[in-house]
Amino acid sequence: MEQHNRQLFSIRLKVRDYECDMQGIVNNANYQHYMEHARHEFLHFVGLDFAGLTKEGIILVVKRIEIDYLSPLKSGDQFDVSCEPVRISPLRFGFRQNIVRVSDQKPIIQAFVTATSINSKGRPFLPPQIELVFNSNQP
Amino acid sequence: MEQHNRQLFSIRLKVRDYECDMQGIVNNANYQHYMEHARHEFLHFVGLDFAGLTKEGIILVVKRIEIDYLSPLKSGDQFDVSCEPVRISPLRFGFRQNIVRVSDQKPIIQAFVTATSINSKGRPFLPPQIELVFNSNQP
Amino acid sequence: MEQHNRQLFSIRLKVRDYECDMQGIVNNANYQHYMEHARHEFLHFVGLDFAGLTKEGIILVVKRIEIDYLSPLKSGDQFDVSCEPVRISPLRFGFRQNIVRVSDQKPIIQAFVTATSINSKGRPFLPPQIELVFNSNQP
Amino acid sequence: MEQHNRQLFSIRLKVRDYECDMQGIVNNANYQHYMEHARHEFLHFVGLDFAGLTKEGIILVVKRIEIDYLSPLKSGDQFDVSCEPVRISPLRFGFRQNIVRVSDQKPIIQAFVTATSINSKGRPFLPPQIELVFNSNQP
Repeated sequence: MEQHNRQLFSIRLKVRDYECDMQGIVNNANYQHYMEHARHEFLHFVGLDFAGLTKEGIILVVKRIEIDYLSPLKSGDQFDVSCEPVRISPLRFGFRQNIVRVSDQKPIIQAFVTATSINSKGRPFLPPQIELVFNSNQP
Repeated sequence: MEQHNRQLFSIRLKVRDYECDMQGIVNNANYQHYMEHARHEFLHFVGLDFAGLTKEGIILVVKRIEIDYLSPLKSGDQFDVSCEPVRISPLRFGFRQNIVRVSDQKPIIQAFVTATSINSKGRPFLPPQIELVFNSNQP
Repeated sequence: MEQHNRQLFSIRLKVRDYECDMQGIVNNANYQHYMEHARHEFLHFVGLDFAGLTKEGIILVVKRIEIDYLSPLKSGDQFDVSCEPVRISPLRFGFRQNIVRVSDQKPIIQAFVTATSINSKGRPFLPPQIELVFNSNQP
Repeated sequence: MEQHNRQLFSIRLKVRDYECDMQGIVNNANYQHYMEHARHEFLHFVGLDFAGLTKEGIILVVKRIEIDYLSPLKSGDQFDVSCEPVRISPLRFGFRQNIVRVSDQKPIIQAFVTATSINSKGRPFLPPQIELVFNSNQP
């Protein structure tokens, strides 16, 4: 579990044409899809399963998202989506996420996602597995 | 054209089930779709056509988005998406946007979107029509 | 309940720009979204709630879809999506669906959707509420 | 160019959680997205670029789609989407497409897509590059 804190976790994807809009570039909302997928793959990598947690009644919830759109992706582009866990407070955790185009390492997206976790009654509840992932990431 | 600055522009939509994810609530990225649609309807309301501008080579570009997720929408919910223009700088303009559930006026989303406009060569270019909309909105 | 068999059930929607792709027309898959939404609104109209059924463990499942793409929708187009129930067999029911552009009544989509219903164990199971809707529609 | 007619062209993808709906399975419309992406990757493989053709005013258009939904994909599933070109008539060409889950080779989707090509005036126009791909596929 040490490894993912030292090395940056990331996934490599390729633009699908249906993700582009009439401007011929990836539609803004789709970058959020890419980043959500990277977060879920990161959770899977550290032993957490989003679908499984949901079934158990542990609901991971995004509370805030800040996205800087630096440059657009186009049809055919390959890109890396990174995901770095950050502990924010006893009940909040975050993810620093970047998207970079593979061909020229051009920065595409810079984002910060704040999340929390609630139980089936809507009460804040951070399960131990989540604690572990984000605590090992203290400065 | 004065009217939309005094009264808040908004559109009313209803959740479509395919917009909900395995948690049974609207997927985070879809709120960006709702807000984009409200912005384009606002532009249309003040006499600007997004598709038309795109064809003319005037590309409206989102540079930054900040979204606070206050409460989720569910299947069947009706909601209002507002769109208030804000002038930021000579080359930047913004939109303050909120989503509110109709049934109980519960705040769902609070967001701020920063945008700019570029020409077909990728150079910043704010066409007079855009100037007009955002300048009439000075404090 | 008689009424919806005599008169055609339909909903009126408007193209959202994010539904258009780089060809400047609505992406093919989005018509399926429109039709799904019309089916769920139809079910709601006859007293059935898709989200509620899902929670009860009654899973409505599409088994086959045939879509003829007659003409594309563009940015700004308003359109009607119809939904006509058809009983196919003891365990199968269907929907005849059409999309027509409002401005000129141009036919856009002609489709037929075959569905069934299963319980939480994956066994075919047609609940009485579904029976009622589709049986009243015999020739 | 012979090779792709003998061997079946396919791409391998993984379900992204946002593609799942409240039933916890991939939403029906997303299979169309998967298949479109496989077709565009196939075209790219045989030397045709969808985005490039669109810019040149050559619009590839789906006229009809038939999809049999055999079994649903779930969160985490990996799957192969195949794409086999079929010549239908002087102005029509088609694609036989299947989706198969990797883990157990379970058939998920069986589909047939009929397409044509039009020029910027909306007239049927099959460019020589397209001819070549589909003619080499005669029985």
